[in-house]
Amino acid sequence: LIGNEILSGRTADANLHYLAKELAFLGIALIEARVVADRQKAIVDAVRALKKSYDMVFVTGGIGPTHDDITTAAIAKAFGVPALKNPEAFRRLEAHYAGTSQPFNQARQKMARIPKGARLIDNPISAAPGYQIKNVYVMAGVPVIMQAMFDSIRSTLQTGERTRSATLTTTLTEGVIASELEAIQNRHRKTEIGSYPHIRDGRLGVALVVRSLDEAALTRAVAEITLLLKRHGGKILSS
Amino acid sequence: LIGNEILSGRTADANLHYLAKELAFLGIALIEARVVADRQKAIVDAVRALKKSYDMVFVTGGIGPTHDDITTAAIAKAFGVPALKNPEAFRRLEAHYAGTSQPFNQARQKMARIPKGARLIDNPISAAPGYQIKNVYVMAGVPVIMQAMFDSIRSTLQTGERTRSATLTTTLTEGVIASELEAIQNRHRKTEIGSYPHIRDGRLGVALVVRSLDEAALTRAVAEITLLLKRHGGKILSS
Repeated sequence: LIGNEILSGRTADANLHYLAKELAFLGIALIEARVVADRQKAIVDAVRALKKSYDMVFVTGGIGPTHDDITTAAIAKAFGVPALKNPEAFRRLEAHYAGTSQPFNQARQKMARIPKGARLIDNPISAAPGYQIKNVYVMAGVPVIMQAMFDSIRSTLQTGERTRSATLTTTLTEGVIASELEAIQNRHRKTEIGSYPHIRDGRLGVALVVRSLDEAALTRAVAEITLLLKRHGGKILSS
Repeated sequence: LIGNEILSGRTADANLHYLAKELAFLGIALIEARVVADRQKAIVDAVRALKKSYDMVFVTGGIGPTHDDITTAAIAKAFGVPALKNPEAFRRLEAHYAGTSQPFNQARQKMARIPKGARLIDNPISAAPGYQIKNVYVMAGVPVIMQAMFDSIRSTLQTGERTRSATLTTTLTEGVIASELEAIQNRHRKTEIGSYPHIRDGRLGVALVVRSLDEAALTRAVAEITLLLKRHGGKILSS
């Protein structure tokens, strides 16, 4: 996520949660996220590190027409390629602005500059495309545009098996069940059990989330956790 | 931010935005944020990299009593120290649970293990402390507890001069004003001008945010931007 506005506290980011949910739905495990400032070195360093470490990298923000939109220059630099006027991107933008009262001026033409070798990502909302270069997908920062771009690449992504999950929310607190829960985790290696405490109406409670690629393993672990909660007199608020 | 629940899309993180706002208020520039999974290597690598690069590092999440709370072990490893039973943390937890119907069992005693050399951070809500080790501040993941912990360290932080900011929201779109806005940015080097487009009621608009440590410089840039917007017939919706 590229943008000073997130780091300065001006904007509460919405893109991470969207991407996390959608990637989970597609069976793509999100392993790490970074929020990086609008500074070339910061972007180049992060993109270089992440594209090497992971199968796919999703980048949002900084591809607009203003002086603080430096993502494309940074991505080009991270890949050691120039950012060039892309004829197809130019055509799309030209056609888009021809249908408005707005001029297709130099600032807007900047949005047709795309790193060499990248493939465009459609932007059905405001025309200016995102792009994919190798394993890096670059999208707009405005959430509705980012989401539309993600929709347009969704079917092209190498997806995996979807992780199943079940959540048991209870009024018990973590500390009461922690040791037995660990034992359940140790007996159910095909599942990942997460324990997420919360405070509601001034009271601690916990949501136990079981995740697995294997539905039967998930069901078995959930059954054991359900018994654990009952044994301790816990109410299961939702499951 | 440490937690599988954020990366899996289960939980929409609230701590980053809180920290970003509070740090800005204290005149501490937030330069980068990372969301890291509950995996020891991931946490150790991130903490080692960030504590070297920045003056302060704020960590949230993973210091509870359950098996998936591995932050303390990872922080200790990142600093090459053991995590030991901390007598003061133990005393606080013991006193806290003595006042409840809950046992101070082994799982809860885990929360008294603190990396050697760390100083405790008060937790007025559920007793289990956070801690500071060198330039790394480790706090709970539950937002209300994290916020209470942050309140208790707030006055100890080395703060800077607060960045002033002003926002001009307009119905104009970025592309219309981009080149002149860049010229204004170039003439007002003591300010940082950010351009943040949005879509409201199906229409593009933009918020121009001017930030500066220098109030007079801020005022001058805002005056120029106001003229720019008027020149283009833009309505200023808020400023």
